[in-house]
Amino acid sequence: MEIKELHLDNYLGKEVKINGWIRNHRKQAHFCFIDLFDGTCFKSVQIVYDEELSNFEEVSKLLVGSSICVSGLVVESSGKQEFEIKAKEVSILGYCDETYPIQPKRHTREFLRDVAYLRPRTALFQAIFRIRSVASMAIHTYFQDRGYVYFHAPIITASDCEGAGEMFRVTTLDLKNKNLKDEDDFFGKVTGLTVSGQLEAETFASAFSKCYTFGPTFRAENSNTKIHASEFWMVEPEVAFCDLDGIMDIEEEFLKFIVSYVLERCPDEIDFLNHFVEKGLRNKLENLLNSNFVRITHKEVIDILKKADVSFDFAPEYGEDIAKEHEKYITEYFGVPVFIKDWPRDIKAFYMKQNEDGETVRAVDLEVPGVGELIGGSEREASYEKLIARMKELDMNIEELDWYVNLRKFGTVPHSGFGLGFERLLIYLTVVDNIRDVIPYPRTPKSCDF
Amino acid sequence: MEIKELHLDNYLGKEVKINGWIRNHRKQAHFCFIDLFDGTCFKSVQIVYDEELSNFEEVSKLLVGSSICVSGLVVESSGKQEFEIKAKEVSILGYCDETYPIQPKRHTREFLRDVAYLRPRTALFQAIFRIRSVASMAIHTYFQDRGYVYFHAPIITASDCEGAGEMFRVTTLDLKNKNLKDEDDFFGKVTGLTVSGQLEAETFASAFSKCYTFGPTFRAENSNTKIHASEFWMVEPEVAFCDLDGIMDIEEEFLKFIVSYVLERCPDEIDFLNHFVEKGLRNKLENLLNSNFVRITHKEVIDILKKADVSFDFAPEYGEDIAKEHEKYITEYFGVPVFIKDWPRDIKAFYMKQNEDGETVRAVDLEVPGVGELIGGSEREASYEKLIARMKELDMNIEELDWYVNLRKFGTVPHSGFGLGFERLLIYLTVVDNIRDVIPYPRTPKSCDF
Repeated sequence: MEIKELHLDNYLGKEVKINGWIRNHRKQAHFCFIDLFDGTCFKSVQIVYDEELSNFEEVSKLLVGSSICVSGLVVESSGKQEFEIKAKEVSILGYCDETYPIQPKRHTREFLRDVAYLRPRTALFQAIFRIRSVASMAIHTYFQDRGYVYFHAPIITASDCEGAGEMFRVTTLDLKNKNLKDEDDFFGKVTGLTVSGQLEAETFASAFSKCYTFGPTFRAENSNTKIHASEFWMVEPEVAFCDLDGIMDIEEEFLKFIVSYVLERCPDEIDFLNHFVEKGLRNKLENLLNSNFVRITHKEVIDILKKADVSFDFAPEYGEDIAKEHEKYITEYFGVPVFIKDWPRDIKAFYMKQNEDGETVRAVDLEVPGVGELIGGSEREASYEKLIARMKELDMNIEELDWYVNLRKFGTVPHSGFGLGFERLLIYLTVVDNIRDVIPYPRTPKSCDF
Repeated sequence: MEIKELHLDNYLGKEVKINGWIRNHRKQAHFCFIDLFDGTCFKSVQIVYDEELSNFEEVSKLLVGSSICVSGLVVESSGKQEFEIKAKEVSILGYCDETYPIQPKRHTREFLRDVAYLRPRTALFQAIFRIRSVASMAIHTYFQDRGYVYFHAPIITASDCEGAGEMFRVTTLDLKNKNLKDEDDFFGKVTGLTVSGQLEAETFASAFSKCYTFGPTFRAENSNTKIHASEFWMVEPEVAFCDLDGIMDIEEEFLKFIVSYVLERCPDEIDFLNHFVEKGLRNKLENLLNSNFVRITHKEVIDILKKADVSFDFAPEYGEDIAKEHEKYITEYFGVPVFIKDWPRDIKAFYMKQNEDGETVRAVDLEVPGVGELIGGSEREASYEKLIARMKELDMNIEELDWYVNLRKFGTVPHSGFGLGFERLLIYLTVVDNIRDVIPYPRTPKSCDF
């Protein structure tokens, strides 16, 4: 049986049989104790055995990391556990020698990255990767329960028209050859890894009303920071017949849904992180659930910043982007998540709906205390003429995106959507501050191991 | 409100307001009829209007594909529908001209591939892509309800040691340069797109006991067939403390779960496909639910084939692979899905557990009537010595996969897993026989559009 089951019900006085890995092994005068985990839940279980065990000698020599199968009786524990297992039989599945890198002591996260294939066995990464899994399911559940169609956006793509970031090239050309011709490549042209599935998602929203993507996206940027990875997962819902206020309603409900789903299903994991990584985590998450998100315009934000009694490194200016320090000030000013909307059009993407003032677009960024920008969204430009005009202004290749602009020719509808970087969300949920620690096998410049 | 809601409850006599696209528009002497869909469910709704409409002239000229917002009264229908909407107000959201490629007539699937961004608006692709979404959720629900951890396997990888197929290269080198050096590439070495997440999944199963991947995988093979795509989604669960029989139990339960989940949630879509694509579809799916899958060895299969009163193009042989015609014969012979296990080791992958006979491995393929091989799985080799010996035999680079073989050194456990090609499953569920028609934007040799 699984250790999870043991903790869900009362098995006192019953015979059980469990498998797992040894996390800790202590030998005392007459008894030995094994801390055994199997990863089915955050908790482990204590095994007690003594010399009555037929293979006592062998078992007592087992090192941390070894795998065993234990049959025994569930009994009340003399220690702080609710119960423990008095072993009657222990069979050894796999030995582990003293070269095993994961020992019962504090390892640095940098060290654990080097043995990324073993770090899921530590308590910290048991918590992080279970939350990653549960948060994924929260995302699917939220959208599927509300009738959204899950849409797999293509990963290999021939268009980089969004300009969202540097792309990796995908090729089967033999790089040792000279005079490589793009038209000889696998797809007959230059292709790369997608930076966003949004444009394709808009085509599905124009058929199913509501859809979402949840898949990997890529950036070939040579930036070695704590929050950049070359490969990461994005959630991109797209909703027809929905305006900017409508998409803000969805974002707020969606974020609260995920937080509440994770709090409910990962109480032990959150407690652990709250205890060992950041004391205020549980409070922070519960506060989010109880808050009403503020909605203000970019202009109002600049007003507030200009009046602030703070000397910023970058002076806040109308018509310009806001800096990290400004985000921080604004979220602290309100103490709750803040939607900043109606951004200067020149610093936002071509597909965003142009406001009547000719200067701003219906974009909205969600700024969350403690993490900064978490979600970026917008109402999309639904007018064929306005979209074309903007693309010409930006000197974009309209022909290459004819399918995208044609959506505005064939029964265009008001529609809006947003993008959530999944790892950014996980950093918020786990308070682990390096993106390399929330991805199973992170890919960053000069680093692609496992 | 959504058209889905209209069909879920009785709104007769009530005022409603709905958005959607015109699928059909018929004008009669005194009344006009619009068939309106919004993609929130498979059914559309009939709108009736007459000259009392304030903008009657304008509305009556609307062409198929236009988008409108209708306010009106739900009334009993004179036609075959249960109800229709008597329009009081129709506002036009987006016009559509006569160049719109999707007209109310039969289009070939080849034609629709050329306008892949519009085909989700047809009934056929409404059915296919909703089933794709619902089947995805079935997969997540099955595993999450049973405590599996969803694990995002890396997409960009430096190892092709599995030899599962040709890989795409991922690069940021400027191909116009001469003398390109691999060590100058983004990751400091040669990297490509993953062909499988299994090896990494094994590392997670060795920490969480149960995990699964569900993500895109890639093959750079230049094959233009109905069942090959360069980019497709794979499901790969991996289970510790599980042997070959255990993984067959899971495969059978898993497949039945998905079929039953889709039948329950997509009755209209299945009816449509059953009516217009293949009459026996519903029967086929229901039969699968009620069948007990057969389990036989590869040797027993060859015995049956050799005795068969059929002249095969390829003679069945012990120790060799079985051909499509053999798969077909065997599934028809039993009339239910068949697990074929204990395959000749020379035609199977290096990581499969070696049987005591020295000739076979604990591999299992699931052959399903009407589609052939649907799932491939195996118990994995848990012995360090045996795995190393096999890799040496195959002249593999052991050092490059040290993390993988080390799992056998650090607390090895018996474990098994399988791989399901998601599009292969969709072909089975929808009876649409070309993989290009179950992927939103398919990628195949010389074809990477949208």
